[in-house]
Amino acid sequence: MTQTALSDMQVAHQLADAAGAVILPYFRSSDLGAENKLSEGFDPVTVADRAAEETMRALLAELRPRDGILGEEFPAKAGTSGRTWVLDPIDGTRGFISGTPTWGVLIALSEDAGPILGVIDQPYTAERFSGSAALADMAAVAEMTGPMGRKDLKTRATQDLSQATLFTTFPEVGSAAERAGFERVAQQVKLTRYGMDCYAYALLAAGQIDLVIEAGLNAYDIQAPIAVIEAAGGLVTDWQGGPVHAGGRALAAATPELHAAAIQLLNWQD
Amino acid sequence: MTQTALSDMQVAHQLADAAGAVILPYFRSSDLGAENKLSEGFDPVTVADRAAEETMRALLAELRPRDGILGEEFPAKAGTSGRTWVLDPIDGTRGFISGTPTWGVLIALSEDAGPILGVIDQPYTAERFSGSAALADMAAVAEMTGPMGRKDLKTRATQDLSQATLFTTFPEVGSAAERAGFERVAQQVKLTRYGMDCYAYALLAAGQIDLVIEAGLNAYDIQAPIAVIEAAGGLVTDWQGGPVHAGGRALAAATPELHAAAIQLLNWQD
Repeated sequence: MTQTALSDMQVAHQLADAAGAVILPYFRSSDLGAENKLSEGFDPVTVADRAAEETMRALLAELRPRDGILGEEFPAKAGTSGRTWVLDPIDGTRGFISGTPTWGVLIALSEDAGPILGVIDQPYTAERFSGSAALADMAAVAEMTGPMGRKDLKTRATQDLSQATLFTTFPEVGSAAERAGFERVAQQVKLTRYGMDCYAYALLAAGQIDLVIEAGLNAYDIQAPIAVIEAAGGLVTDWQGGPVHAGGRALAAATPELHAAAIQLLNWQD
Repeated sequence: MTQTALSDMQVAHQLADAAGAVILPYFRSSDLGAENKLSEGFDPVTVADRAAEETMRALLAELRPRDGILGEEFPAKAGTSGRTWVLDPIDGTRGFISGTPTWGVLIALSEDAGPILGVIDQPYTAERFSGSAALADMAAVAEMTGPMGRKDLKTRATQDLSQATLFTTFPEVGSAAERAGFERVAQQVKLTRYGMDCYAYALLAAGQIDLVIEAGLNAYDIQAPIAVIEAAGGLVTDWQGGPVHAGGRALAAATPELHAAAIQLLNWQD
């Protein structure tokens, strides 16, 4: 099989398959080899995380040698094609070490203006959420596969905050000011839930929830969710409504109406 | 097949199979038929919830006609055997309507002193956590089945709060005083996570986390977790260390040492 025989989405799925196969034997194993990556705070890195990224990098060297790579665990690799694969082998490491099936393998393909393709993969539940605009080598994609088969991804039509379900991973969200912004939105919505890591973005793309608000993200945390949610009809920006593919504070919304309402509350000043 | 040919655990598994089959078509469907059960607060009840309990009650009428039934959705049925099946067809309805795979079917078999058998079943991920002391018709059970096969359930050996992972479903926990008690424990542990509903108890039984603290529970929320966790070597009591099978404030711990340390902090007075 030659390199050009595989579409970009097929490459992304091969990366997800390979990463999942590396990671799964470590999930719920007793010795995770967790260590503290930062001197302060709790940011465990597992053997699985590194091994999966190495495996994906080796595959890309073979399948897409001209593309750059930005990954969580190893230094960035410059490319010559103007395209970059953005990899987070285990997004939600704290969920991973707790045994919850809400972590994911995040894979995005990015150009300067942002991601054009994304995959959120949960190997334990065998769920894969894929999204892409139409590209040179393939039609647009917005679909999930999982225990209940294949389904189109489509964000739901909720327009009022009073009817919305909001997710974030940590109740503290970020800084005190960031938390205050989040709380202003949380007080207006129907239901607020926590603890889902990247799985929350997948649920938004699947039309199950309406808003995800997070802060302190890295590029590799948010690029795959951006591509998947945009392909499903939703919006992902920073808290001012600008691009968030470089990381920072993210707001994902099912509809423009919810997005606008959340932006207003996030930036409201006393 | 005669009634006596089935062990109590086999009956519990038949109930879980039947409930899962009823519920799963409604999971992530667009029209959940959610309604507010309470005039204040948000406690959705779905068509699936009621249909699954009706199915389990019909099975019990056939397989265990002399036993009582205590379920979330319908009036209690008195028995003549001194034993009661305690059923929560969908524990974690708010997780369910958000599409998260952290709700569960909870099934317990109870005597006056508390549950003697429990099953926590997650039909979407095909995970089932089962626990029981030795009974007349079967040996003791502490096992899970799931995507990675069958595994013994055993709580882990963590003794210090500083090494413990703590879960609860809602950051507000309960009343202000209950939240303050929870926060005293949360400040001492290594990691606190939210949003897992009954799945957190299953993770504790599986040796993945160390503590679950909740308030405002009903009997049907906690009886299956009690039986599964006790069979796996852990402890489940109220916040004073007494029985919690009637509901209220629950503390589940992997070891007696963690349990004692958490009890002290939960009851600490300024």
